[in-house]
Amino acid sequence: MATSTRSSKRQKTDGSAADSGPTSGTSNGDSYRLIYWPGIPGRGEHIRLAFEATGTAYTDVANTTDEGVNAVLSQISDKNLGDETNPPPLAPPILQHGTVLLSQTPSILSYLGLRLGLVPDPNEDPAGLYHVNALTLTALDGLSNEPHDTHHPIAPGAYYEEQKEEAKKKAADYRAVRLPKFLGYFERVLKGPASQGGQYLYGGKLTYADLVLFHTLDGVSFAFPRRVRRLRETGDYDAVWGLYERVKVLEKVSAYLASERRKGYSMGIYRHYEELDDEE
Amino acid sequence: MATSTRSSKRQKTDGSAADSGPTSGTSNGDSYRLIYWPGIPGRGEHIRLAFEATGTAYTDVANTTDEGVNAVLSQISDKNLGDETNPPPLAPPILQHGTVLLSQTPSILSYLGLRLGLVPDPNEDPAGLYHVNALTLTALDGLSNEPHDTHHPIAPGAYYEEQKEEAKKKAADYRAVRLPKFLGYFERVLKGPASQGGQYLYGGKLTYADLVLFHTLDGVSFAFPRRVRRLRETGDYDAVWGLYERVKVLEKVSAYLASERRKGYSMGIYRHYEELDDEE
Repeated sequence: MATSTRSSKRQKTDGSAADSGPTSGTSNGDSYRLIYWPGIPGRGEHIRLAFEATGTAYTDVANTTDEGVNAVLSQISDKNLGDETNPPPLAPPILQHGTVLLSQTPSILSYLGLRLGLVPDPNEDPAGLYHVNALTLTALDGLSNEPHDTHHPIAPGAYYEEQKEEAKKKAADYRAVRLPKFLGYFERVLKGPASQGGQYLYGGKLTYADLVLFHTLDGVSFAFPRRVRRLRETGDYDAVWGLYERVKVLEKVSAYLASERRKGYSMGIYRHYEELDDEE
Repeated sequence: MATSTRSSKRQKTDGSAADSGPTSGTSNGDSYRLIYWPGIPGRGEHIRLAFEATGTAYTDVANTTDEGVNAVLSQISDKNLGDETNPPPLAPPILQHGTVLLSQTPSILSYLGLRLGLVPDPNEDPAGLYHVNALTLTALDGLSNEPHDTHHPIAPGAYYEEQKEEAKKKAADYRAVRLPKFLGYFERVLKGPASQGGQYLYGGKLTYADLVLFHTLDGVSFAFPRRVRRLRETGDYDAVWGLYERVKVLEKVSAYLASERRKGYSMGIYRHYEELDDEE
């Protein structure tokens, strides 16, 4: 747990040499460190994608340094009270940038959005970054948090097997009602004039909201492959899946997806249980 | 649904004369309009509290104008595609400020935070507003979204009575595990050095995170009165309840709470069902 004072907040930390991603530097010389559980995409994936899609150097601490999972555990320990300028985090992902330690995925993305060029220029569009933030929050609500709750509808800290019957009911509602609702919403966003043509969610350019939507769509496709195939076949969400395919083949994104830095789904947010998907 | 173009975005709309809150003006002359379901606190309450605690004029459209609930319904209609600069919202609350239409509670609060002085000055503390945002997201996760899910663990669109047995299980886990976890987290934040003394969550001054924590604590106290009383009696969360009591008696907040503008809890996020609370 770093200690700092308000007066030291602009001082630089030593840059880590263990960057695992692309090699372009950050604007102020401080290195970006992502502190997140090793071995899974999880909520850290949204932060990784922001770095990868923009070719920004970062260290994926638990996956690529000797600190390993201890980097996460010491941060979320109930003995951690934070420091003079950083409250303690409840959970990862945690972004470390110089002396700044920031938690909560949407807040980290807001912080990075301006720095990595993943939001509209506030001088040209002062409300743009708030719209990107709102679209992101909606994608995380309906296409990340709700899919998680399909396998943990009763108790987040208990085993799936202890809530399997309730999970079947929750997943049935998710597949029938909630998933189409959120896909339909993003279809509408892409057909609306603020998308500036429907190539991306907002303003005609790639923002972090597109990266979040890409990954959450990828996650629900893994978790509910039969249901997603049927929904895609309706043609009702072609703009949404068009965006998914478009982001997937962006040069830097596609290089990342093919690399070992992209972890496979396992027992995290997105899980594939036969009994929670549509029948054959 | 307003239409605008990017070039018109800084134009002012006609100020509404129907402001229901305090009377100080906004800095650029545009009026603030909150578009939210009438008659309940709901997620709109966080926006109301930001206006009320700072003495900022606003119009609570559905509660105080002839537009009523239609102001909400036309916004969330699946025929609404938004306009040139505003994507359509999925759900209220929606903030209208000049030609800006913004949805998602945490995004609206970010937008208002700088304008209403409810975040640290970014020139003195560049990361402060992101910390306030992160604390807010955490309070909304554990003390608003999760309490909602205790009465709707399976299907958000179905009746409570259709998921009552699952609700009992979910509420038991919430009372025993999740509620103490989140109270313990905020206790730790208040005891940490970034709170600057533990009077408020961050930086020694009132921010919108404190207002959000106040209202979510108020909500869980309404929903689970017996459980909350027992948790308060342990003394383990005295800093958290100290903040609750401190915000409650702030002059403008207390005047608001005593007014007709503050709606009572009913069938929204926070519901009191005897069977979901601790036994006597």
